[in-house]
Amino acid sequence: MAKEVISREENYSQWYNNLVTKADLAENSAVRGCMVIKPYGYAIWEKMQAQLDKMFKETGHQNAYFPLFIPKSFLSREAEHVEGFAKECAVVTHHRLMVDPEGTGVVVDPSAKLEEELIVRPTSETIIWNTYKNWITSYRDLPILCNQWANVVRWEMRTRLFLRTAEFLWQEGHTAHATKEEAIEETEKMVNVYAKFAREYMAVPVVVGKKSANERFAGALDTLCIEAMMQDGKALQAGTSHFLGQNFAKAFDVKYSTKEGTLDYVWATSWGVSTRLMGALIMAHSDDCGLVLPPKLAPIHVVMVPIFKTDEEHKAVVAKMEELKAGLEKSGLSVKIDDRDNVRSGFKFAEWELKGVPVRIAIGPRDLQNNTVEVARRDTLTKESMSADAVVAHVVELMDKIQENIYNKALEFRASKTYVVDTWEEFKEKIEEGGFLLCHWDGTPETEEKIKEETKATIRCIPMDTNVIMEEGKCVYSGKPSKQRVIFARSY
Amino acid sequence: MAKEVISREENYSQWYNNLVTKADLAENSAVRGCMVIKPYGYAIWEKMQAQLDKMFKETGHQNAYFPLFIPKSFLSREAEHVEGFAKECAVVTHHRLMVDPEGTGVVVDPSAKLEEELIVRPTSETIIWNTYKNWITSYRDLPILCNQWANVVRWEMRTRLFLRTAEFLWQEGHTAHATKEEAIEETEKMVNVYAKFAREYMAVPVVVGKKSANERFAGALDTLCIEAMMQDGKALQAGTSHFLGQNFAKAFDVKYSTKEGTLDYVWATSWGVSTRLMGALIMAHSDDCGLVLPPKLAPIHVVMVPIFKTDEEHKAVVAKMEELKAGLEKSGLSVKIDDRDNVRSGFKFAEWELKGVPVRIAIGPRDLQNNTVEVARRDTLTKESMSADAVVAHVVELMDKIQENIYNKALEFRASKTYVVDTWEEFKEKIEEGGFLLCHWDGTPETEEKIKEETKATIRCIPMDTNVIMEEGKCVYSGKPSKQRVIFARSY
Repeated sequence: MAKEVISREENYSQWYNNLVTKADLAENSAVRGCMVIKPYGYAIWEKMQAQLDKMFKETGHQNAYFPLFIPKSFLSREAEHVEGFAKECAVVTHHRLMVDPEGTGVVVDPSAKLEEELIVRPTSETIIWNTYKNWITSYRDLPILCNQWANVVRWEMRTRLFLRTAEFLWQEGHTAHATKEEAIEETEKMVNVYAKFAREYMAVPVVVGKKSANERFAGALDTLCIEAMMQDGKALQAGTSHFLGQNFAKAFDVKYSTKEGTLDYVWATSWGVSTRLMGALIMAHSDDCGLVLPPKLAPIHVVMVPIFKTDEEHKAVVAKMEELKAGLEKSGLSVKIDDRDNVRSGFKFAEWELKGVPVRIAIGPRDLQNNTVEVARRDTLTKESMSADAVVAHVVELMDKIQENIYNKALEFRASKTYVVDTWEEFKEKIEEGGFLLCHWDGTPETEEKIKEETKATIRCIPMDTNVIMEEGKCVYSGKPSKQRVIFARSY
Repeated sequence: MAKEVISREENYSQWYNNLVTKADLAENSAVRGCMVIKPYGYAIWEKMQAQLDKMFKETGHQNAYFPLFIPKSFLSREAEHVEGFAKECAVVTHHRLMVDPEGTGVVVDPSAKLEEELIVRPTSETIIWNTYKNWITSYRDLPILCNQWANVVRWEMRTRLFLRTAEFLWQEGHTAHATKEEAIEETEKMVNVYAKFAREYMAVPVVVGKKSANERFAGALDTLCIEAMMQDGKALQAGTSHFLGQNFAKAFDVKYSTKEGTLDYVWATSWGVSTRLMGALIMAHSDDCGLVLPPKLAPIHVVMVPIFKTDEEHKAVVAKMEELKAGLEKSGLSVKIDDRDNVRSGFKFAEWELKGVPVRIAIGPRDLQNNTVEVARRDTLTKESMSADAVVAHVVELMDKIQENIYNKALEFRASKTYVVDTWEEFKEKIEEGGFLLCHWDGTPETEEKIKEETKATIRCIPMDTNVIMEEGKCVYSGKPSKQRVIFARSY
């Protein structure tokens, strides 16, 4: 193989880094913590964007764009919000460079200091609610259902490609409502859109739940989330939807006149997913040979590798491939014929496995004689020889099968690593193996904090989408009464 | 009318600002020079993006994403480049805020000063060529054909919505080639993609040409551009494509081994269009009633306004509209039924005229009796009554007609304001009226500079796409020999 990937067992963390860089998804840039998303990685992100954007529009949202910069004073308006973000802000202080009077390079021009510093947005609640103030007068102006696709910056100290980067790409929905009920409904609607996307497109099973107070978004009354399990048993928060109450409306004085003629503060939500989803996608499905992409998000569905010795054979094989390619493209699949002349077919096989292309087709001279082709599945690493006449229909069908198989595999894995835990001894033992621990919790931040200190595990969520765990019981740590089980896990 | 727009004649500049804000396209934000792009404006930009992205991909380009921040030292590597951008840079100097020890707000934490300042990208040549250095070893790695959709910041002192803002949205293509010829070909190919987009989608006639040295991109050997004429006779540069030679390859030491085994620097191009195109679109077609949108970029193609008195009439009219809407949507058109109950139909007519919706359909009780509808064209402000049975086919056809008519109108306008000028006296007189002056120029920056000082006119471009003006002559200012006419105009 051309580009060795270390095995998951040997070093899971390095395996992930290997995959991201060797499959040409992303790389670190010269700027600390900022990544370059390479064309192959960006093509996957574009597919995610297109599908999510469609789902947002189907649920009545429109896109808009708000400034990259946030005046420092805006951040301070909502007390918890500023506390949450102040420590990791990129701050713009000047607006001009000048030739260094003492050297050759350029330096910051001290005379171009800004009156008020600008923060590169870590999230846009403040600048958006300052804008909504001018858009909202009456109940007739509500709801406002806006989404923005944008880059944001959070100055993280320890970064990892896609999972935690100083700059990342995301979407942030910001909605304004006349009533509390409507805002809560929106918060739930959007977390369910995320869950549907994760399950049906990323083929990643997720738990929908509510965050504990400790893990809430800075400024939210409630944070809903989707949590996925990675192959090392760790949890990854893949999307969040916040019920913000009237916090930002109060901070920016956004009131509306109700139908009844009274004045009231507006209710808010915000919700977002980011390029972190790329990390979830990679870690949920990939194996020691490389990426495994679900067909619905794969930039290339089918790669074809010609096998030949003579020019004549080459010509005949490629002609057959072009014919099949046309048939597959007609069915909406994206097909690439890898006709490079400077690498062997074994190298090509390994490279496309590394890149996670769902199906590989190989055709050689003997296949032409027999009217057969070899079809290999990336998800199972199996291959079969079949009639060339049947291959288009077969491969189209395979896409659904692969999508389903990848999802089921992840679902089974999660089930195998999800434990109902009732004693503190068992908790401490199980958490070392990784996985989701379904436990009773007394509902206090103090207990959660102590469990975190002792085990590095946090409450990933208080599940909302299952009845099984709604039984009452006693806290696994304190023994105090609990209304339902929650999910504890170590997390990314 | 609900939202008055000042007439073009009265105050062209204010007319433009009126349109942008009153048609809900964009507004100024709380951050100096940064705009908020509102949902209706953003929907037009999304249509532009989708079409351009398609054209980029059809010409073999892939999207990628590079960091928002550029280390200060990178900017300095290419001498002309840094000179061009240093004076308008947003500079990040710190990465943390802290609670003000002397007050209530937050202040910049002095201990979180960056070792090297980061510039918010004004354009990405430097960070991208620093990345390409690691991607390119051999001729087999070339060409690299990347594009990025991103936000950029140039700290302009005088800003205008869409036309000149501190932050704007754009795409920037950055390509790397083995030969000079190939890079020049790419530069020309992309300026022609822009021209095609402007003409066929924006319905804006443009001249394709080359910039004079004075107007070149900082760091380019050649800048090609498309120039459009606005209704006040001023020129607007709508897109540029740069041949960068080996400047950035040399600045970042990017060499490749050729087929012959020698080492050579890589050749570069970059090309971009921005949200400035929105300004061009608005100013090229709109009238004193508001926007006039070409159907190919209109978020809503047809608006339907019900006319009724009783509830029964209302119900019947809307039912008919739903039927027609389904038919129009089947043909790929976007249709909105404006069924608001708190404004009159006259208000609605004016509002959708302001928003530039290409076709308006009104149906009243009498129409139902006669099986007719009233169809109004935004571009001509004419209306006709016609059989309801024929309306779907008619409106679908109208879209093409309107697209064509808008283009032709702009083309005729440009022709009427384009003058062949041979004397300096005539130049000074004509330039006051606005328009394109086709003049001979001696080819020196000095003459161009003097003409600019005396008349505020600059060379918009040395046209490439017409034979008419390839005649030789004498410079309109200096009388020295000239090889071809160039276009002088005042510009945005």
